[in-house]
Amino acid sequence: MVEMRKPILVSEAVRLVMEHSYLGGTDTIPLEHTYGRILAEPIIAKHDVPSFDRSPYDGFAVRAKDTEGAFGDNRIPFTVIGEIGAGHVATSGIGPREAYRIMTGAPIPDNANAVVMLEQTTEGKDRFTLRKPFSEGENISFKGEDAKEGELLVKSGAFIHPGTIALLATSGYATVKVAKRPVVGILSTGTELLNVSDELVPGKIRNSNGPMIAAQLTRMGLGYKSYGMQEDDLDACTEVVRKALIETDVLITTGGVSVGDYDHLPAIYERLGAKVLFNKVAMRPGSVTTVAVLGKKLLFGLSGNPSACFTGFELFARPAILGMQGANTPYMPRMQAILGEDFGKPNPFTRFIRAFWEMTSEGIVAVPAGFNKSNAVSSIARGNCLIALPSGTRGYTAGTHVDILLLGSEQGVSEWVL
Amino acid sequence: MVEMRKPILVSEAVRLVMEHSYLGGTDTIPLEHTYGRILAEPIIAKHDVPSFDRSPYDGFAVRAKDTEGAFGDNRIPFTVIGEIGAGHVATSGIGPREAYRIMTGAPIPDNANAVVMLEQTTEGKDRFTLRKPFSEGENISFKGEDAKEGELLVKSGAFIHPGTIALLATSGYATVKVAKRPVVGILSTGTELLNVSDELVPGKIRNSNGPMIAAQLTRMGLGYKSYGMQEDDLDACTEVVRKALIETDVLITTGGVSVGDYDHLPAIYERLGAKVLFNKVAMRPGSVTTVAVLGKKLLFGLSGNPSACFTGFELFARPAILGMQGANTPYMPRMQAILGEDFGKPNPFTRFIRAFWEMTSEGIVAVPAGFNKSNAVSSIARGNCLIALPSGTRGYTAGTHVDILLLGSEQGVSEWVL
Repeated sequence: MVEMRKPILVSEAVRLVMEHSYLGGTDTIPLEHTYGRILAEPIIAKHDVPSFDRSPYDGFAVRAKDTEGAFGDNRIPFTVIGEIGAGHVATSGIGPREAYRIMTGAPIPDNANAVVMLEQTTEGKDRFTLRKPFSEGENISFKGEDAKEGELLVKSGAFIHPGTIALLATSGYATVKVAKRPVVGILSTGTELLNVSDELVPGKIRNSNGPMIAAQLTRMGLGYKSYGMQEDDLDACTEVVRKALIETDVLITTGGVSVGDYDHLPAIYERLGAKVLFNKVAMRPGSVTTVAVLGKKLLFGLSGNPSACFTGFELFARPAILGMQGANTPYMPRMQAILGEDFGKPNPFTRFIRAFWEMTSEGIVAVPAGFNKSNAVSSIARGNCLIALPSGTRGYTAGTHVDILLLGSEQGVSEWVL
Repeated sequence: MVEMRKPILVSEAVRLVMEHSYLGGTDTIPLEHTYGRILAEPIIAKHDVPSFDRSPYDGFAVRAKDTEGAFGDNRIPFTVIGEIGAGHVATSGIGPREAYRIMTGAPIPDNANAVVMLEQTTEGKDRFTLRKPFSEGENISFKGEDAKEGELLVKSGAFIHPGTIALLATSGYATVKVAKRPVVGILSTGTELLNVSDELVPGKIRNSNGPMIAAQLTRMGLGYKSYGMQEDDLDACTEVVRKALIETDVLITTGGVSVGDYDHLPAIYERLGAKVLFNKVAMRPGSVTTVAVLGKKLLFGLSGNPSACFTGFELFARPAILGMQGANTPYMPRMQAILGEDFGKPNPFTRFIRAFWEMTSEGIVAVPAGFNKSNAVSSIARGNCLIALPSGTRGYTAGTHVDILLLGSEQGVSEWVL
């Protein structure tokens, strides 16, 4: 008899996966290697930013009170007593109607409290005149205006992007504490699989899931251990999975999770004593997506169908791998779009359609990226998002507002809402 | 006298940069290293996908005409004459009321033209009964339904993402022709600069632009050559730039492009005979952004102010580097958002504000990411987009619809429209 599996909601599946994504350790690494890592410490301003009052322009540092009354032909003259380049400090303060020539980024000299931009003066060699007054603090970048010493600037758990790195550099973080990345293994199962370099033979297809998942991990900045391909042989597969689980924190397999006679993953989970969190999700494609846990290790049993495999990775494996790093925004960004064409299939389950979004004069429009079946490959190549269609509907017409999830977006969001 | 520079529009600056982004060569590399590269050949289906009619389910392959008349109690019995696992081929065709047990992905045997799902049967050991008719072609994945042999699947110039890799694998591209990546150098100039590991001293700041640009390049999948930091010394800087231009295709410098006495980049361009494409852009921050060209090499003179530097890279250097690889979508994706708070500053020039967008119950809302000046660092760390406010306005109120450009998005768009 066919095993009857009870499908769970996508949101429940996500919840279960995240609940079993155990936090790994931390690494302290040089700043220049931190792009794409997850912060395992908050960024705290170690000093005021800027750390001194400075000039945001090339110009002259003056005392505002000396500029009072300057107007049109009633120009006020100033004597230039020196020059302050960026990186230098004035040797003295300034007196009445004195000024320092000052460069962008240079510290404001003592007594000065305004900066006159170069183009606001009529300049001679050692003197200039002004025809408008300046107020106290005008054109000054104040100490601490960007950040105050001790201020929490970025929380632990944040994704480290170029802007984060600029802030870490400014704050003197030559090394940074980041989350360890889990070691992820990939195993493709199926007697039908050929290597990419193999010629096609009847009944066989090339393994596309293995390279695809490798790239999905690469996109996340992770390396991977490849366990290659295995035919549908229970004993042989069990041994590979057993070995892989010694060497990895997460094992992603493709194929073998359905209820067919050659679907051995369920038996393998049983043999190894792994606890199956779910083996059916109320979604298309990828309803057979299975996730099991053994100790603190996660086993993702993704469908052998490429579109289903792709979707299963993005919906479950990706946030879990981020969760294991303590990431506070592990989910794909969501936004609303206008459905660009009719989608006639009914949706007994939530449907995730590989799609392409773009901004148009009508707003954000998302169009299914072509041939739509769980075994489709071409549509994964053409998509930049997933349209999420709720279950319980009879199809959608063009113009409907739908949710889309952005693929390949560096930063994510903190909540799963579908 | 202060040199008067004529600002050009952002769109014109983008056009000029792209016009001078010369296409480099190509590399042929193993499929597993192609993530993030730009395709230098189209992906053509080398065979139909699927390459044979196959079963999308576990079930029984039958002749549709044998199922005619099946209804409720009028069950029709079938004899199972064999089994076809994925990767195997049936040893014979089927005759009247015969069936093969067939697994997902297995080829349809001769004469069969429908698949009965396992759960649609009442199954015995070697036989089963049906209580509904099946039509010809029902539950069959047809040869070529995903792609036809010879079909153009993805154009040359596309960004290679995991879905592209799945398609390349399916089509047997064990090696792929991709665009060579330009060699990019980074040089930070400014006497005020300290290394990240240095203690602060009066008048000095740590170099944040160098590490930031390195990360902006890493985000694009590129390596970089670092030329470290240089004080504002014309001769020394000239020599470093001269050397860097021998070793790189693109040189990104920070600082030294304004009109101050220590801004040496303009003189360096002149000494080297580089043609300045523009040295002032009608934008904030980063109006001093300068781009020059020497032969086929591009020199980006970015502002020393971190926010301006960041923005200059994303607006100009990023698309140019993609353009040099023949990328057909080199620009940041744009979308509309609701401005989440008042932005009071007038905009004599187009303004790009580091901001944070998120989906809310009101739609997509973008909020400036804090302290907003060209020398700000903290806001770059907090942002996930740039709000683009057109010039010629007196500030904006919350609720206005504004354009935003998405940062850190893997795939871009083909046109610059701001």
